[in-house]
Parts: sequence; structure tokens; C-alpha cells
Amino acid sequence: MNFQSFNPPRRILMGPGPSDISPEVLASLSRPVIGHLDPLFVGMMDEVKALLQYAFQTKNEFTIALSAPGSAGMEACFVNLVEAGDKVIVCRNGVFGDRMIQNVTRIGAEAIVVDSPWGRAVEIDKVEQALIANPDAKFVAFVHAETSTGAVSDAKTLCALAQKHHCLTIVDAVTSLGGIELKVDEWGIDAIYSGSQKCLSCVPGLSPISFSQKAVDVIKERKTKIQSWFLDQSLVMSYWSGNGKRSYHHTAPVNSLYGLHESLVQLHREGLENRIKRHKIQHEALAEGLAKLGIEFIVPKEERLPQLNAIYIPEGIDDVKVRHYLLNKYNLEIGAGLGDLAGKAWRIGLMGYAARSENVILCLAALEDALNQ
Amino acid sequence: MNFQSFNPPRRILMGPGPSDISPEVLASLSRPVIGHLDPLFVGMMDEVKALLQYAFQTKNEFTIALSAPGSAGMEACFVNLVEAGDKVIVCRNGVFGDRMIQNVTRIGAEAIVVDSPWGRAVEIDKVEQALIANPDAKFVAFVHAETSTGAVSDAKTLCALAQKHHCLTIVDAVTSLGGIELKVDEWGIDAIYSGSQKCLSCVPGLSPISFSQKAVDVIKERKTKIQSWFLDQSLVMSYWSGNGKRSYHHTAPVNSLYGLHESLVQLHREGLENRIKRHKIQHEALAEGLAKLGIEFIVPKEERLPQLNAIYIPEGIDDVKVRHYLLNKYNLEIGAGLGDLAGKAWRIGLMGYAARSENVILCLAALEDALNQ
Repeated sequence: MNFQSFNPPRRILMGPGPSDISPEVLASLSRPVIGHLDPLFVGMMDEVKALLQYAFQTKNEFTIALSAPGSAGMEACFVNLVEAGDKVIVCRNGVFGDRMIQNVTRIGAEAIVVDSPWGRAVEIDKVEQALIANPDAKFVAFVHAETSTGAVSDAKTLCALAQKHHCLTIVDAVTSLGGIELKVDEWGIDAIYSGSQKCLSCVPGLSPISFSQKAVDVIKERKTKIQSWFLDQSLVMSYWSGNGKRSYHHTAPVNSLYGLHESLVQLHREGLENRIKRHKIQHEALAEGLAKLGIEFIVPKEERLPQLNAIYIPEGIDDVKVRHYLLNKYNLEIGAGLGDLAGKAWRIGLMGYAARSENVILCLAALEDALNQ
Repeated sequence: MNFQSFNPPRRILMGPGPSDISPEVLASLSRPVIGHLDPLFVGMMDEVKALLQYAFQTKNEFTIALSAPGSAGMEACFVNLVEAGDKVIVCRNGVFGDRMIQNVTRIGAEAIVVDSPWGRAVEIDKVEQALIANPDAKFVAFVHAETSTGAVSDAKTLCALAQKHHCLTIVDAVTSLGGIELKVDEWGIDAIYSGSQKCLSCVPGLSPISFSQKAVDVIKERKTKIQSWFLDQSLVMSYWSGNGKRSYHHTAPVNSLYGLHESLVQLHREGLENRIKRHKIQHEALAEGLAKLGIEFIVPKEERLPQLNAIYIPEGIDDVKVRHYLLNKYNLEIGAGLGDLAGKAWRIGLMGYAARSENVILCLAALEDALNQ
């Protein structure tokens, strides 16, 4: 067999992620590899920590980038904090809430499932009822921005509710970090994970996570050993500790971390508020254009994520045909529906670097063309 | 705070990994990101599978690159195959055999530990005795190339022994793949994992793994659910299946996989046998030069890994001072000792792209200079 180098075309990525990334971040990936224990690399990791603290709006000492994708970040939060027999209230309003349940049950813990409709925010009342009915629950877990449906949930209120009932919170911020308001310390989030390839506009493969002091205490006071060696954050803590004496745990994905560092430098330079505003502005422009095309959103206006626009596929339109047409004619990728919404919805991402006027204009024009084929 | 882009210097990486990578692999990382479900990307993943089958010398259908470092590859092998209560014979002759034991016990399985001295191959007789004493053992696990000590074990004989006693084998090939002879099908290895950053000369962050049909059957016939969702290979199998209808599991680390693809294309072009020969030739040149400097190997000649040369730090020489001198004056990284060998040994890697005459010459001259300071 004959194998050649792979030369991908330049796509415009407006799906649910990976999202478009800036030329600077892309270029940073090809910088020379250095050792993961090299003093210069350790210094860079310290900056990644500080920049992630800024992105998460937290002073949490334990704020790092896990060397694996967001789904490993989710698992890291659950397996470190939750022990067999613990009761966890899990809010499910899409694919990723469902995945949380699978994480809880594989630990041997009990998931109290609070279902809200797909395409809607988590229903606060139902969570409160579950908390009252389960005074022995230890955690409340929910997805801040459901990537499968494009709905945002009221993380601030959910956290306040959990605190009132003496529960720690585990929050999925895969799609929310850097795209909408997210205040880890102010809202009192205890364990949070995200992904590098969404609104941070870095390549996929890393998962920023942060644990509050309360969460760290829970880990330290565990009765049982963490079931995963790779995700055992009590071992990872010393690998990421900034005191210069780093103990080996695993080999960090050096070049991907160059990309994350660069993307966080860009976030810091733009400013979190400006970036959030930019997402909102581009979302409004997209929504206006979609309305003109007669396309309807799945999520009611007040619960919509600006960075992930889930829309109904118009009647009589062939899902796959349109997506292929966009990809082949315009190098434009939009996302398919996931789970219950497969075949019924498209997901248009406006994440990070992709949240730009030129992308919105192209997407609307290309979509209009495709629908008229 | 003011954050700047990170611009690492060009180091020569002759430690235990990450190893030097070629300019072509480095450049491939900055190719445009495309979606992980893009048909072009799916096609590239199929090629990665085929190229990994070549590297592992296997026809195993289940041969993929795990989206996380080698230590996650280790855990994937154990958590998928081993269930609570199972008996696993684990050979320990360095740090990574010890890590295997931690993986086994965290599953709730029983590790029968066979200890061999650090810096030596796994002792076959002892393994046989353990197999006779434990007829109910289901697995034999060992490290083919111990990165912590530089010793190679006789994988072929160990596998034959395991088969004789009706055990499946779990093999750590993190440092061996692409560096020394390794024949998964011929030797009958059932589960094997490696790392991208060693003799494949790709960036760190990916773990090539392969399961035999027997291993896949064991996974299918499990009585209990796999404790890790992220590492559950029954879910990942369909993500990597080549039938064009790929079901979403997680977002693959797109650009790192560009790098792995390119590094495997280079391996295929050079040819496995030529690459193995190159490692041997450069190792011999290095060993000759080290002998002239009066430096002694930790491992006896017949058990030495060509790609990882563990040597005793000469009496009276300051470990850290020498390594800093090499790094600061020559941009040359060699590895420190690990575990029991910390402070007593250096590890000089000649892995993949680093196994070159110019590196050997530089390393010897720089080391001579450093020792005379």
C-alpha cells in the first residue's frame, strides 16, 4: 500500500466543535517540541493555569488542563468526587446530561435523574423538589450549555439551590466557557470541566478543569481509592503544582498545550466581556438572517446559546444532502442533530474565532443557496 | 498581568520522551483543522488504523489511537479486559510494571506480582512459577521495554508461556513500538498499548492500542460494565469503525492525529526493519563513545534497549548540574533517573528521529564537556 501525507482543505467550522481557530493558534502548534519537564515548559504551564483561572473567573488553586478531551474531563470530575453509594442529582436535558448519568452509575453511585425537555433549560423547580425528596444527596450535576440542543441553563440559580441543600455542584461548561457569562467563584461552582475546541478556539484534545477548595477537601477525605489511575487528580495535582518541583505523572501533550496557551493569551487580550459580547452580536445577526429564511430555532429566545444555534430542518429538506452541499461547495461545516434531534435539527456553531461577521454572512448565503437546490 | 505568546527554543530531545520529531511531522500539526466527522478526516483515520497495524505487525481489526497519553492506553487495556475478582500476573522490573499493579488493584482485581531486579529483563522462570502456582490466573501483564531502566524483556517467550497456561497477555509497548522488534500477531499478544512520543516520533498525547480477537471476545463477554466511560472501547470501536457510519463518542484530537498520521507515513516509508536497524546502529555508536568516557550501563548488554540508554552517573558528579549545563549550553535534553534510579542514573534516548549520527556525536561531546566542568 502507498500512503501519502494528509493535506486537509481549509474548512469553515460552524458546527458544534471543533470550531474555527485563529492562524496564530494554528501556527503555535508547530513550534519546536520541548520536554514536558523542561523549566521553560513548566513556566508555560503555570501561565496556562493563571489564564484558565481568568477564563473560569476563579481563584481555585486546582485549575488545570487535563491531557484528554472534554468527556475525560467529565469523568475526572465524577470519579474524583463521587464514591460508590453516593447520591447524585443529575439534570438531564440533552445528550450530555445523559452521559453524566452513565458516569455516576459506573462508579456504583446513585443517580437521581431530573428530566427537563430537550431544547429547554433545566427546570429549577424540579431540581428543588428532587433536593427536598433526597436530603442525603451529596452532589448536583448539570450541563451549563447543552451542546446537543443549544439551550443554556441558569447555572447561578442552580448553584445557589445546591448550596442551600448542602450539595456540591459538578458543572459541564464544555460549550459555555469563553462564550457566555460563567463565574465559577461568584456562583460557587465546585467542580467544572470544559473542552479546548469550543469557544476557546483551540484544537480538540484538552479539557480545562477546576475544583474548589471544598471539592479538593472531598477528594482528600475519600474513603475509597479513585477508580481511575489516569484521572486521579490527587496524583495530577503535584504534576501541575507551580513550586518548580514537579513529580512525573504522565507526559503532557506538549504541542496541544502550546495551542491552548496561545488561545488563552488571545482570550485574555480580547477580554472575556468583549468576547462574550462578540458571541452575542454575531448570534443576533445570524438569528435575524435565519428568520428571513423562515428557519425556526429549537430553543425559546431567552434560553438560547449564542454560540450554538440549534434549528429545525425545514420540512421536505434532506438533512445529509444539504450538509454535504455546504461542505463540498463552500467548505462550510455545520453540525447534524444529536440524540433525539438526529435528522430533525442542524446546529450552527459561532464559537470563538468562528463568531465573525464574514462567517455569519457566508453561512446565511450558503444555506439559502443549499435550500434552493 | 501581561501574557505573551510562548516561543520555545529548539531543543535536541534525547531523554525518555518526548523525542525529537521530524520537520515534516511538526509542520503537519499546523494544517487546517477539519471536523472530526468530516469524510476526509474519517478517511485519514482509516489510514492511521492501517499504518498502526503495520507498526504493530498485526491484522487486529481493533487497532486505533486512543485520544490520550500512554498511561491512559495502559488503563484502557486493564479496565476493558480485567474485571473485579480476576487474577492478573503482573511482572514488575521498573516504574511501569508498578503502575500496572495500581491499575489492577483499582479495578478490584488481584495482582500476583512477579518481581525482577530493576535494570534487568523480566525473569521467565519466576513468571512460570507464578503461572503454575496460580492456575486460575486470567492474564499476564508485562512491560516490553521498561522506560525507567532501559531493559528489554523477552516478549515472545513470555507470550508463549502465557498461552501455555491459557492466559491472555497485556503488553506495555510504550517505548518498544518502532524501536525494536515487536510482532503482535506472531507472538500472540492480546492487548497492547504504546505512546506517540517515543520511537514513532510524534508529539505526546496519543496512545496506539490493539486488541486481538480473543481480547475483543473477553470484552464482549464481560459480566460487569467497564468502569470508565471514556475508556470503554466497546463504545470507541464504532467511532473508529471504517464502515463510513461513525457514531459519535468524543471529539478526536484532530491535529495531533495529523502528526501521528505523518509520523506513521514516515515509518512506513523508511520501513520497520530499517528503522529498527537504525536504532541499533546509533545505539552502538553511543555505547562505544560512552565506554570511552568511562561511563557504565545499568543494563547488561544482551538486555539493553538501543533506544533508551540508562547509564550510571559517574561518582562525584552532580546530576542536576550536568543536566542543566547540557540544556542551557547545548539545548540538549537527557533524562533523569526515575523511581529507584532517581539521582543515580541518566537516561539517554535515541528514539525515532533522534536516532541520528549528529545527535550521537553531539551528545557524547557535550557530555564530555559537562563532566569536565
